[in-house]
Amino acid sequence: MTWNDTLPTHLQELRRGTAVVASLAALRSPGHGYRLLQTLGDAGINVDANTLYPLLRRLEDQGLLTSEWDTTESRPRKVYRTSADGEQMLDALLTDLEAVRTAIATLTDRGIS
Amino acid sequence: MTWNDTLPTHLQELRRGTAVVASLAALRSPGHGYRLLQTLGDAGINVDANTLYPLLRRLEDQGLLTSEWDTTESRPRKVYRTSADGEQMLDALLTDLEAVRTAIATLTDRGIS
Repeated sequence: MTWNDTLPTHLQELRRGTAVVASLAALRSPGHGYRLLQTLGDAGINVDANTLYPLLRRLEDQGLLTSEWDTTESRPRKVYRTSADGEQMLDALLTDLEAVRTAIATLTDRGIS
Repeated sequence: MTWNDTLPTHLQELRRGTAVVASLAALRSPGHGYRLLQTLGDAGINVDANTLYPLLRRLEDQGLLTSEWDTTESRPRKVYRTSADGEQMLDALLTDLEAVRTAIATLTDRGIS
């Protein structure tokens, strides 16, 4: 086993939490799931649809997203938007991500002390 | 349920992957588990010992850390160090973390497009 074999798992772990942050950030402008998938992909965050759709439902259950049905097209689609609670969650997660980044930068410079 | 109730879970997800990055960064200077725990804590990354010790064994199994026994004290202690493969993994994860950061910054500015 080389380090490359375990890279996907480690990348996946690293990205699991960031999909939440990215979704809350992007959905401050309302959008349906497929559009979000494209927006995240364009930004360089490739999330699988089978991961993203359950995530969106979970965030809605947690009150972090609200949704309404867009019925302007032939097939109704659920349009999500980050709620006020979701904004607070986003702030908290962004703060934490920045703290982790600072910590890792410190560790990368200094090593163990 | 308020957003605060789900914050710990989201923070935990966000931090799961970063513990690997932080450990690989810190252990470029060799150290045993307890010392690493302190170093990470000092840097603001609070990892539970029950999470960190299995993680270190897993990273060693994956060839990302090497270890040797420090027998200079009464109780032998395993001293870990980031391997050459671990350095490559660290580089890859840091690159990814930076890409995610850039993506999230873009999304935070722009919202969905």
